[in-house]
Amino acid sequence: MPSDHFAQIRASFARQGMMQTFEAQLTALGPGHCEITAPILPLACQQHGAGHAALGFALGDTAAGYAALTLMAPGREVMTAEIKINLLAPAVGTRLIARGRVVKSGRRLSVVTAEVEAEAAEGSRRLIAVMQGTMVPVDPVPD
Amino acid sequence: MPSDHFAQIRASFARQGMMQTFEAQLTALGPGHCEITAPILPLACQQHGAGHAALGFALGDTAAGYAALTLMAPGREVMTAEIKINLLAPAVGTRLIARGRVVKSGRRLSVVTAEVEAEAAEGSRRLIAVMQGTMVPVDPVPD
Amino acid sequence: MPSDHFAQIRASFARQGMMQTFEAQLTALGPGHCEITAPILPLACQQHGAGHAALGFALGDTAAGYAALTLMAPGREVMTAEIKINLLAPAVGTRLIARGRVVKSGRRLSVVTAEVEAEAAEGSRRLIAVMQGTMVPVDPVPD
Amino acid sequence: MPSDHFAQIRASFARQGMMQTFEAQLTALGPGHCEITAPILPLACQQHGAGHAALGFALGDTAAGYAALTLMAPGREVMTAEIKINLLAPAVGTRLIARGRVVKSGRRLSVVTAEVEAEAAEGSRRLIAVMQGTMVPVDPVPD
Repeated sequence: MPSDHFAQIRASFARQGMMQTFEAQLTALGPGHCEITAPILPLACQQHGAGHAALGFALGDTAAGYAALTLMAPGREVMTAEIKINLLAPAVGTRLIARGRVVKSGRRLSVVTAEVEAEAAEGSRRLIAVMQGTMVPVDPVPD
Repeated sequence: MPSDHFAQIRASFARQGMMQTFEAQLTALGPGHCEITAPILPLACQQHGAGHAALGFALGDTAAGYAALTLMAPGREVMTAEIKINLLAPAVGTRLIARGRVVKSGRRLSVVTAEVEAEAAEGSRRLIAVMQGTMVPVDPVPD
Repeated sequence: MPSDHFAQIRASFARQGMMQTFEAQLTALGPGHCEITAPILPLACQQHGAGHAALGFALGDTAAGYAALTLMAPGREVMTAEIKINLLAPAVGTRLIARGRVVKSGRRLSVVTAEVEAEAAEGSRRLIAVMQGTMVPVDPVPD
Repeated sequence: MPSDHFAQIRASFARQGMMQTFEAQLTALGPGHCEITAPILPLACQQHGAGHAALGFALGDTAAGYAALTLMAPGREVMTAEIKINLLAPAVGTRLIARGRVVKSGRRLSVVTAEVEAEAAEGSRRLIAVMQGTMVPVDPVPD
């Protein structure tokens, strides 16, 4: 994978208002995998101060999408066709780490999974969500 | 359903940082159904300016959760066990309207669906996502 | 939709060994919808004599697939990309009725839902499963 | 885990008409995991002679359910609350091998995954489906 493909993905990530809102960072990227990390901010919480289900979803979905994009032709974009999340524990702690992974990369569909962990202040991690879904390549949208 | 049950649900919704961030409003609430409406703000967009998949997810998941809560005993809280989203079209327009509905309310599990529509400036609406999931009642968290 | 498209779908259904095993019948077919009915036979049961989850799945998945195929170009075949089932009640009674419906028909992907009901001996029906998934058109396989 | 817990699970498996129909065998069982193997019989095929999606589903769902049951209290039974399958390739070959695994075992809900492989006549294997779902413990049904 040429390094400009990676650079395109990082530029795409940087353009996402939602990722900026969550102060998310793309902390790892390689062929078929992607990691995104974000603090659990009050602006992304549910009624009891834990991270909203949609926060874990946003990070896991985005990580899975970019994981799929690493294996598509350079210059393509990626879109979620469908994805499912099973929540295992409340999103409590200082930050969430989402890791997306490609199960099967296809011409028309890529099947992906993601795991989301919550990290406590002292550094221990707990799996809080697993996801399984389908990403599709799309033509880039002209600006 | 006593009106203080509705009031509790509205108060729960008002405590959600994520819903405030998205400027979401609880626009309808009744036995077994709930509607949430939010503008498509730049802070909730993906790289091409459409609403992020997680925006539709956040609204649909929250609407489905409160739909389930309307049929649970007063004083309980609700948590998403799992939910799946199929995305049908990009979230473009001025606002999203998510409607959650209970398919089956049970003592341990409630099965729910949600539909998310995008509304254009001139008022036309387009279905952009469908969701199907499971909500569980939980004991309220002491403040 | 020309009647030979319907005839092709009925012929495709008749070739399915699994549908024959379950003694399933294609009981309704129209643009964007399909209904399949089958008895709850001991050969399709789980350990307590109710229909196995895979029986409802088989009928609902097949009904949803043919519902999608009715809206595709004649001569295509259809394949399940992914599908999810939520089980609401045990599959007890004399027969199951599965109804598939197209939510959105696309060139590359069709989003579908299915409902499965169990019918008691005296004729009453109970919803036992809901499904949501994605069908893809494929080129016919040469015999 | 006492050996009579294993024996109960094997006895439960043996009572399933659906597993007998598919000539499925419980080929491995341990704490939190279960493997089921079955030939791809014509009676379980779709219209082109590949295994029906419901065959892979049946094996993966059952493997995941018994994987969950190994971690529940002896004497309980297990039921699928919901499960999703992503199909990666046609179920062609001589047999399918489904492996269920527990992601999180809880008092009320267990989150599970399953992988289904197809084995060719010469012994090579190919991943054809991945599944993710929720199992619930239930009280045994009196005979």
